[in-house]
Amino acid sequence: MTTDAATSRQIPGRTVSQAVGSAQHITDNEIFAAHEGGKLATALTAPLDTIRALSVAYTPGVAKVSRAIAADPSLASRYTWTQRLVAVVTDGTAVLGLGNIGPRASMPVMEGKAALFKAFGGLDSIPIALDTTDIDEIVETMVRLRPSYGAVNLEDVAAPRCFELERRLIEALDCPVMHDDQHGTAIVVLAALRGACATLARDLEPLKVVIAGAGAAGVACTKILLAAGVKDITVVDSRGVLHAGRDGLNQVKAELAATTNPRGITGSMADALRDADVLLGLSAATVPEDDVARMAPEAIVFALSNPDPEIHPEVAARHAAIVATGRSDFPNQINNVLAFPGVFRGALDSGARMITEGMKLAAAEAIYKAALDDLAPDRIVPSPLDPRVGPAVASAVAAAAEADAVSG
Amino acid sequence: MTTDAATSRQIPGRTVSQAVGSAQHITDNEIFAAHEGGKLATALTAPLDTIRALSVAYTPGVAKVSRAIAADPSLASRYTWTQRLVAVVTDGTAVLGLGNIGPRASMPVMEGKAALFKAFGGLDSIPIALDTTDIDEIVETMVRLRPSYGAVNLEDVAAPRCFELERRLIEALDCPVMHDDQHGTAIVVLAALRGACATLARDLEPLKVVIAGAGAAGVACTKILLAAGVKDITVVDSRGVLHAGRDGLNQVKAELAATTNPRGITGSMADALRDADVLLGLSAATVPEDDVARMAPEAIVFALSNPDPEIHPEVAARHAAIVATGRSDFPNQINNVLAFPGVFRGALDSGARMITEGMKLAAAEAIYKAALDDLAPDRIVPSPLDPRVGPAVASAVAAAAEADAVSG
Repeated sequence: MTTDAATSRQIPGRTVSQAVGSAQHITDNEIFAAHEGGKLATALTAPLDTIRALSVAYTPGVAKVSRAIAADPSLASRYTWTQRLVAVVTDGTAVLGLGNIGPRASMPVMEGKAALFKAFGGLDSIPIALDTTDIDEIVETMVRLRPSYGAVNLEDVAAPRCFELERRLIEALDCPVMHDDQHGTAIVVLAALRGACATLARDLEPLKVVIAGAGAAGVACTKILLAAGVKDITVVDSRGVLHAGRDGLNQVKAELAATTNPRGITGSMADALRDADVLLGLSAATVPEDDVARMAPEAIVFALSNPDPEIHPEVAARHAAIVATGRSDFPNQINNVLAFPGVFRGALDSGARMITEGMKLAAAEAIYKAALDDLAPDRIVPSPLDPRVGPAVASAVAAAAEADAVSG
Repeated sequence: MTTDAATSRQIPGRTVSQAVGSAQHITDNEIFAAHEGGKLATALTAPLDTIRALSVAYTPGVAKVSRAIAADPSLASRYTWTQRLVAVVTDGTAVLGLGNIGPRASMPVMEGKAALFKAFGGLDSIPIALDTTDIDEIVETMVRLRPSYGAVNLEDVAAPRCFELERRLIEALDCPVMHDDQHGTAIVVLAALRGACATLARDLEPLKVVIAGAGAAGVACTKILLAAGVKDITVVDSRGVLHAGRDGLNQVKAELAATTNPRGITGSMADALRDADVLLGLSAATVPEDDVARMAPEAIVFALSNPDPEIHPEVAARHAAIVATGRSDFPNQINNVLAFPGVFRGALDSGARMITEGMKLAAAEAIYKAALDDLAPDRIVPSPLDPRVGPAVASAVAAAAEADAVSG
């Protein structure tokens, strides 16, 4: 067992170095040059280079289509791009790990997200960066825009406001709405944890899991892991371990404290990590190597903060059997791109009015299954480039939508 | 002169028949099939098919670009797609000649418009169909969305509300805003009228012009023709000729009455058209052949209502030397596509904060000049497919923006 663990510990470390090598020559110049003029464009589905094409796609032909939709509004989903169009909506208050940098500075991330919807889900997508952080105003704006899109991917909105905003949007809109920082992350984390367990021949349910961060991702990951049967979860925020006796908890954190921490741990991250099996880093905080060193043998460390992981994966690999990050330039990338394109594609393909818990669990299962062929300590999840994942997730999500009776 | 006129009268009629022939086999099936799934798509400016590309365009690379914009918001125009992105904004209250069919039914027209921006202006464009007709709410919504786009093409909003809405948006937004149904139409009409005059060797200023319709296009065309030196304009709405003595005129129509109709004509379209040189149809109304027959020799008829011209061009051609419509399937298509892609491209290229009267007149001049090479009674404007027009308009508009000191 010790030998096995030691062996597995070496593998991620080595592979990390190779991955760093493959991306280490990316310069600021290359990054800024790639962003010149933006990363997104609009395109025509058919050329407009003849009078006949103009007559069909614009006047006079288009009038027939508009008249048909006026007579039967349900035809809009068939004869416009809206049915497959995801609005990527943000107020710029929690952009990556950079915090509240505002809607304008969020735009490169939103364009990237929209590009990923196209590349991995075959869905059109437009960034909607809003110059307001007022929940009422955001909901009102998306209601007014409703004829213009088919689904809402809520993105990079700070906690705890994001929880109310997502709930309010789901209530107000008759279409799929998902805050990806919550549920996309939770889906891929569950899939990756299943992959890690399969790699180490361990069961998921008895794991002692420590979650660093009680924000959007921390809350959603806690919920999905509880739903998947994990019993022992301890959540740590910037002030220490969440427990029922802690003063000054907001409503969201009080609920977390009530549903987690069965052993009644108090104190700091160091206290929580003692003999823990899993560290799930979902904050911009740093976790010291000494704390990770206290974990149980065959530890699993997911250091998912972007762009700066809670602990450098090479350092974590000294003490853990499995290490993952959120970054493209390290192995085991726990990247939401494995989930959101397929989740929205499946929801839109099935005409789902909402995204249910069953659809999220089905997505996690599909991602995990896609990793099984080629499972290894540095391949606990499929590559974000794996072309099988999006369609597999979409298909599983569409089936779950039908099972949950929310499909169109 | 009579012979010349008779000859010219034949030409449009014959060419009309040919044009109808070229498009007459367009079936409803073809039109609906071309709209299946919509006419617009999003696309990536560079592939996301390697880990390196993901690292550059998304995490961790994108964080550097977001940080740079947070430090200097002006960089958003360089490193995002917003600087070349036109929002095509409507409330669906005056769609083509179809009237108030609502935002959902307007979407095929908005998608077509966005596609034309791409095809003829090289600009990205997204349709924003709003589920509100309240001016305050539309302005508020576009202010909240401001980080997401670079310019606003207001489209298919009913008069007289469109006048206040455009004014309010121009005041509220630090970017180009233009109601295309007003100014795009006015620009192309002025260019076409110059082309018709050059064809017939007539001067523009002394023409007796009758404008059918006091809506968005009627008001804007009146203003641009007055600015171009035309002295004798009579505007006719559904209740008859606008004159200073008419009761019950709203503010916009009262202003029109005060600046037009120098001969004090009263009565109906038939009264206005007696000995008129130009009929400019900008309403969904029908103009009877008998009325057109009263026009002066060498008459010019622009029957621009879409999809149904005020008078069929073959009928008009029995009485007019020059006939034009707004449709792709007849010759002399007075189509806004000759103006708006280049106007917005020139405005965005020059970093203009607004679109001035000078920029509009420069656009009309550029379109007219592009027609001069090949002027004929059935070619008073360039083809909407003429690839020279967009760049020529953009260049003229950018130069006018600089002259008017509104460029960035």
